[in-house]
Amino acid sequence: MPERGLRFEDGALLLLDQTALPREERWLRLTSAAEVADAISRLAVRGAPAIGLAAAYALAVEAERGGDVRAAADLLRATRPTAVNLGWAIDRSLEAHDRGDSLTGHADALAADQLDQDLRIGEHGAALFEPGARAITHCNAGALATGGAGTAGAALEAAWRAGRLAKVWVDETRPLMQGARLTTWELGRAGIPFEVVTDSAAGTLMARGLVDVAIVGADRIAANGDVANKIGTYPLAVLADRHGIPFYVAAPESTIDAGTPSGDAIPIEERAPDEVTATGPARNFAFDVTPYELVTAIVTEAGVRSPPFR
Amino acid sequence: MPERGLRFEDGALLLLDQTALPREERWLRLTSAAEVADAISRLAVRGAPAIGLAAAYALAVEAERGGDVRAAADLLRATRPTAVNLGWAIDRSLEAHDRGDSLTGHADALAADQLDQDLRIGEHGAALFEPGARAITHCNAGALATGGAGTAGAALEAAWRAGRLAKVWVDETRPLMQGARLTTWELGRAGIPFEVVTDSAAGTLMARGLVDVAIVGADRIAANGDVANKIGTYPLAVLADRHGIPFYVAAPESTIDAGTPSGDAIPIEERAPDEVTATGPARNFAFDVTPYELVTAIVTEAGVRSPPFR
Repeated sequence: MPERGLRFEDGALLLLDQTALPREERWLRLTSAAEVADAISRLAVRGAPAIGLAAAYALAVEAERGGDVRAAADLLRATRPTAVNLGWAIDRSLEAHDRGDSLTGHADALAADQLDQDLRIGEHGAALFEPGARAITHCNAGALATGGAGTAGAALEAAWRAGRLAKVWVDETRPLMQGARLTTWELGRAGIPFEVVTDSAAGTLMARGLVDVAIVGADRIAANGDVANKIGTYPLAVLADRHGIPFYVAAPESTIDAGTPSGDAIPIEERAPDEVTATGPARNFAFDVTPYELVTAIVTEAGVRSPPFR
Repeated sequence: MPERGLRFEDGALLLLDQTALPREERWLRLTSAAEVADAISRLAVRGAPAIGLAAAYALAVEAERGGDVRAAADLLRATRPTAVNLGWAIDRSLEAHDRGDSLTGHADALAADQLDQDLRIGEHGAALFEPGARAITHCNAGALATGGAGTAGAALEAAWRAGRLAKVWVDETRPLMQGARLTTWELGRAGIPFEVVTDSAAGTLMARGLVDVAIVGADRIAANGDVANKIGTYPLAVLADRHGIPFYVAAPESTIDAGTPSGDAIPIEERAPDEVTATGPARNFAFDVTPYELVTAIVTEAGVRSPPFR
């Protein structure tokens, strides 16, 4: 079973600090929603489904300490604008709270559902791999990103177990190196062969015939199938298209936002320039939008899905 | 006049150590070809024309100290396989040596020619810019890269002086950050507005209509017009093509290798994996090949050139 990176214990959220990986496995003990919001903001936990789960547990923490659950919800909701799961998880928790349900029990149920759906995403995704596939992935869409088994990462692990995966090319994923730091950590634990490349190397790998399939996660999928994901996903999809390489997106159904007509309507978080460089002016777009026509298939826990999503 | 980054003085080659920029302007004093070869290998000087000049001065240093010029030539030639100018400059120096000419005088003449041709490249390149252009560039193709006035960098400076350039988007250029470290240093000195972005952000900038023109240098241009340049150039060209943005390559005529039929025949240097990451297996392709059909125009000191080059 993959390392899930977060769990609830004695009224606190225990969180594996993803900013310290791979050099250190440091667990944070968070005892208020404000602490969790801070952890989300500074990316100690990241990945759209995982921050949704972290927020659900943050509300449980807040309820257990007798805090203001609605104020905590507002605080958490403002941390990351692009991921749709965050708002979704918070809304579900508030509904449970209004019904008088335990928020801890609710968050535990969300976590169990996440694991279950991730494993199904993995199975559906792995079925798309040809035996011996050399895959490329961007950012981190493994267990660390979902709090379950991952999305694209679950597909890679399922494909590996099924003997369909030969190796993974890991985009380092600038500026925060989630690929080089987190995906490598997960693949290493799973015993899957990998090599890291700079994000700008994907074109050369494809031109040399070294890539058979590309698979990534998603932060939000619009009704028309446009996919918002980590900056660099769009160039990877454009290159895959040029080289006739299938480009798959693996994500839970909750990532699909039927209320967002297309990628143009997805708010794209712009983060602090000093994540890019400390030596001059810089811009730091955290996500990009991949138009649906570049996406070969979207895989969810329900199987292979096709837009429009209404 | 831009900072040229190398000069000959009292039998030594003085070299601005580009690995220390932008935080420190450190000049190296090199008194043997072996020292220069080491400086080239570790990228204290880089950029195809600049390493050609550095090699010419290295042979002059070696001649002045009574060393073995032919052995030095072999040593220098082996440092970087992709740049065609390196072999070209070494061959010209050996011819001068065989004629009994001063290698110092010969290298000085090469340097003067470089500056002259760079300024002409700049003028021809700037003429391709529409007024108010927002340009994107990759890696460093300024004065530091040529030992003259730069290639793409000369075009940016000439366009700026002509009032045709509004700003420059600078790809940081992983793994060695030549864009974030060197191009920004040069643009800052020239007073040209710029912002750094990760290499994976170019697609988003283009999709948002924030880029009018792309311009890069080249390490080698094949007879069919295929361009070898810093890894990441090819994805940039693919994205520019998708967004209808002109993609220009600025390079001296000496970069055109009529003896190389196409990009497939260009040897691509693979550098040490630890330039990419120290935490696991990695691959580090230093250059990529952009097919000629993605190049809107190639600009040299002779003007706008069209393949095939024979």
